[in-house]
Amino acid sequence: MKKQDNLRLKVIPLGGLEQIGMNMTAFEYGDSIIVVDCGLCFPSDDMLGIDLVIPDVTYLVENIHKVKGFFITHGHEDHIGALPYVLKQVPVPVYGTKLTLGIVENKLKEHAIPKNIKRKVVRYGQSINVGDFRVEFIRVNHSIVDAAALAIFTPVGTLIHTGDFKIDYTPVFGDPADLSRFAELGKKGVLALLCESTNVMREGFTMSERTVGKTFDALFAEHENSRIIVATFASNVDRVQQIINTAYKYGRKVVVEGRSMVNIIATAQELGYIKIPDGCLIEIEKLKNYPKEKTVLITTGSQGESMAALSRMAASIHRKVSIEPGDTIILSSTPIPGNEKAVSKVINELAQLGANVIFQDTHVSGHACQEEIKLIYSLVKPKYSIPIHGEYRHLQTHARLVQDMGLPKENVFVMHSGEVLEMDEQSAGINGHVQVGSVLVDGLGVGDVGNIVLRDRQTLAQHGIIIVVAVLERGTNQLLAGPDIVTRGFVYVREAEELMEDAKSVVLGSIMECQDKRVTDWSKIKNVIRDDLNDYLWKRMKRSPMILPIIMEA
Amino acid sequence: MKKQDNLRLKVIPLGGLEQIGMNMTAFEYGDSIIVVDCGLCFPSDDMLGIDLVIPDVTYLVENIHKVKGFFITHGHEDHIGALPYVLKQVPVPVYGTKLTLGIVENKLKEHAIPKNIKRKVVRYGQSINVGDFRVEFIRVNHSIVDAAALAIFTPVGTLIHTGDFKIDYTPVFGDPADLSRFAELGKKGVLALLCESTNVMREGFTMSERTVGKTFDALFAEHENSRIIVATFASNVDRVQQIINTAYKYGRKVVVEGRSMVNIIATAQELGYIKIPDGCLIEIEKLKNYPKEKTVLITTGSQGESMAALSRMAASIHRKVSIEPGDTIILSSTPIPGNEKAVSKVINELAQLGANVIFQDTHVSGHACQEEIKLIYSLVKPKYSIPIHGEYRHLQTHARLVQDMGLPKENVFVMHSGEVLEMDEQSAGINGHVQVGSVLVDGLGVGDVGNIVLRDRQTLAQHGIIIVVAVLERGTNQLLAGPDIVTRGFVYVREAEELMEDAKSVVLGSIMECQDKRVTDWSKIKNVIRDDLNDYLWKRMKRSPMILPIIMEA
Repeated sequence: MKKQDNLRLKVIPLGGLEQIGMNMTAFEYGDSIIVVDCGLCFPSDDMLGIDLVIPDVTYLVENIHKVKGFFITHGHEDHIGALPYVLKQVPVPVYGTKLTLGIVENKLKEHAIPKNIKRKVVRYGQSINVGDFRVEFIRVNHSIVDAAALAIFTPVGTLIHTGDFKIDYTPVFGDPADLSRFAELGKKGVLALLCESTNVMREGFTMSERTVGKTFDALFAEHENSRIIVATFASNVDRVQQIINTAYKYGRKVVVEGRSMVNIIATAQELGYIKIPDGCLIEIEKLKNYPKEKTVLITTGSQGESMAALSRMAASIHRKVSIEPGDTIILSSTPIPGNEKAVSKVINELAQLGANVIFQDTHVSGHACQEEIKLIYSLVKPKYSIPIHGEYRHLQTHARLVQDMGLPKENVFVMHSGEVLEMDEQSAGINGHVQVGSVLVDGLGVGDVGNIVLRDRQTLAQHGIIIVVAVLERGTNQLLAGPDIVTRGFVYVREAEELMEDAKSVVLGSIMECQDKRVTDWSKIKNVIRDDLNDYLWKRMKRSPMILPIIMEA
Repeated sequence: MKKQDNLRLKVIPLGGLEQIGMNMTAFEYGDSIIVVDCGLCFPSDDMLGIDLVIPDVTYLVENIHKVKGFFITHGHEDHIGALPYVLKQVPVPVYGTKLTLGIVENKLKEHAIPKNIKRKVVRYGQSINVGDFRVEFIRVNHSIVDAAALAIFTPVGTLIHTGDFKIDYTPVFGDPADLSRFAELGKKGVLALLCESTNVMREGFTMSERTVGKTFDALFAEHENSRIIVATFASNVDRVQQIINTAYKYGRKVVVEGRSMVNIIATAQELGYIKIPDGCLIEIEKLKNYPKEKTVLITTGSQGESMAALSRMAASIHRKVSIEPGDTIILSSTPIPGNEKAVSKVINELAQLGANVIFQDTHVSGHACQEEIKLIYSLVKPKYSIPIHGEYRHLQTHARLVQDMGLPKENVFVMHSGEVLEMDEQSAGINGHVQVGSVLVDGLGVGDVGNIVLRDRQTLAQHGIIIVVAVLERGTNQLLAGPDIVTRGFVYVREAEELMEDAKSVVLGSIMECQDKRVTDWSKIKNVIRDDLNDYLWKRMKRSPMILPIIMEA
């Protein structure tokens, strides 16, 4: 790790601002690149039919000889979800804490990622030397256990990447965030801090996870005569632990339901991150053997996801659990922006089945609020600040917050994906840009759906499609058959026979016109049909379906 | 209004629970029906391509000889929006206060509804006699001026319908809600109260509209050196009045921008519901003649609506206004559930342009919170309660609230659309059901898009369409041309030539198989093609596009 002359450190967000959730940042010095996190995001409303969105890693592929490894801060989808796809193109070692790598391993197995790509479990306090970098994992708290911040020691100085974090002085599992280590590093000098921004609009301090446990105790006491169903995030192991603790205290048996939750709890149990009293957990099939008021179900679906367990119960299509009048249902989460309506739908459906739905005061955030962010800055005392993880307004608010703390404006960098921030002990500045972007995953296809396909899907979704088929005679272009008109997603055809007849006349007119004008080029004939029919439909019904003329030759 | 023996009053929600926003309730006694409100709602996410949703009024059409008129509580879309459509089928008089009918008239003009359908302006305190009913308009406060509750005097007793309301002791325009009249009616005896439920989950009392004016004063003082742009609901005349008051106080000129807002403010000004100091309002073209810090723009788009003025400014595609660094932009509204992401997008875009966006503490609701709802109940003292306007969980919470106040459970009716509640002085109960539902408006088409079309649009939106065309010889069914395969919204074809060739082979195989088995029925041949291709694509790429085989005969 000897400093090479004339070299500067490069910090490159490969996902981020333009792709919220695709958290991925590259650090480059000389011939070494390390990558922090490898997240996916879920499609926005205009990405019709898309399952997942992963980052374009062309820059890493082109520099594959330099890439030393992925350092993962914690096991949430927006930090690990793209790994199974990206490792196929960038097969380098993956470093993370025990639970994080346990969850990663489940995903890699599903995608049959070969075992010869190294996975290395790192303990808090332990350092990994790779190329010109040394990376130390530091304990932080978050809504998933085993979350880490990273200290990245480089030839030009130390950088700290917080990952997602909060400071919980009374965590359910493990210890509070290692503030002393942040302080120690700060005292020795930190070149730059990359700190998350999710809750930067919120004043104050995020409450301890343990406060939710007290709420559960109160709710279980209040509803001791009814079955209780709690929906929460599959990965929030501490939340599940607290529900189990309360259930045990009140003598209830616990069922865990929902594939992702079952998987994560199994992994957490195997690795020792959750403690379940003997006999407390039962199979869902055994539920009927116990009085309802002596049972608790912990399920997925707190975000109203249509295929999750709670949504299926609400829609009365869950195969094993029927909601009954008097059931108490606790939504232990806050809707992620965009999910509000889906969550409302589930609540209404549950209420109509007679359940008592509780969704207030049963959740705390996993992210630092303003006072926690300020605390980290005051310990770390970085020369440069790079706000990460958030929409532009979050990063901007973060930038203002640290300027209020005295950091000069020119030392704060709100970065766009793909921008290259070069820095050394003396200075820092944006210098250059690398290729970044979103790769759409649809079924087994990765990247085979792009803007043209999406635009077509949007047009189809709006007003459907009209297909016009005509068979022309080879050579003469005389009409042999058709034009036939078939529509899908346009109007209910039985009620629109007259419209279809009129449309056929329009097309016939277009074909005749082309023959009169001796137009023989099929693409021109198709254009005339498309334009004429489009005009006709817009005038008649103010709609613009996709019009697809097909000419066959026989 | 003599009481007819053996007759009971019927209360029938024709929109409501299943169609939030389509507020419409029929009251029927003997040969008389009156209808309160005639609202529309906006399409849910799965109603692809739909512009508006209006109620199915088959019941009114079938009983047209009984229908005496529409009584409109206020001028919001969810109470008046379906009128232009419904009046074509049910051409009866429309009653409402002055501003309400002014706004209604703008809509009816756009839709060329003939003038011979009577519109009658009603004053607060005035009563209208129609058939067996007398209807009195009572002053309430709301986020639009001239809102009314209705007292409906019937042969079996008095009903009160609150419309949308809040109680504002210091309203910007006009007087506080007429609590004395509610008390007076309550003292004489009220059979049933239909009270709105929008804010029934919120404790306490909704703040006065006037508090927002104070916030504007403070914000204008703080940002005296920058241009100010305020986005709010087009119909909130009082809000606009307060912005104008503050602008005038600080010596700023005001521009109103956005078609719907310009229309409503013009109507409000014409009818005397807003007072604009001389010279304060200027044309948007005159903006450049004034220093930026001496101007205010009031615009639409506070909900992130993609075509509204603020969204166009944020996307830098507004033809007359460019956002510049230092502009102060106030979002004077709260996102309606479902609009959160769109609003975030606009805020981020504005922030990226360098604007300072303020969206906290600049809005109050127009709806009654729990203490206001309780106040109305304690004044009106109804025998029966019918919670209205809300999702199921709101109506359910409302029902619990009034039971807590002492109303017996069996006197509270949470009603589904189409249910018929029969009542008289002695008793009340659900008895029967009438046809209700949603009619979809797409372009000029009303009701020509139904479930089949929507399902097709959803399939098309998810994975696009594959069209397979083959030309068969008349009689012999020999393949003359094709099969040709055309796709839209499926994959980017240039990258999938091999896939298309393989698909063609599959189809060719299906056709050959049919010939071998002497299948001549085209619909059977089409089914074989569809099934084979579907299997092939699912195995290869885990996608299910719509597959549309077309066979032409030549």
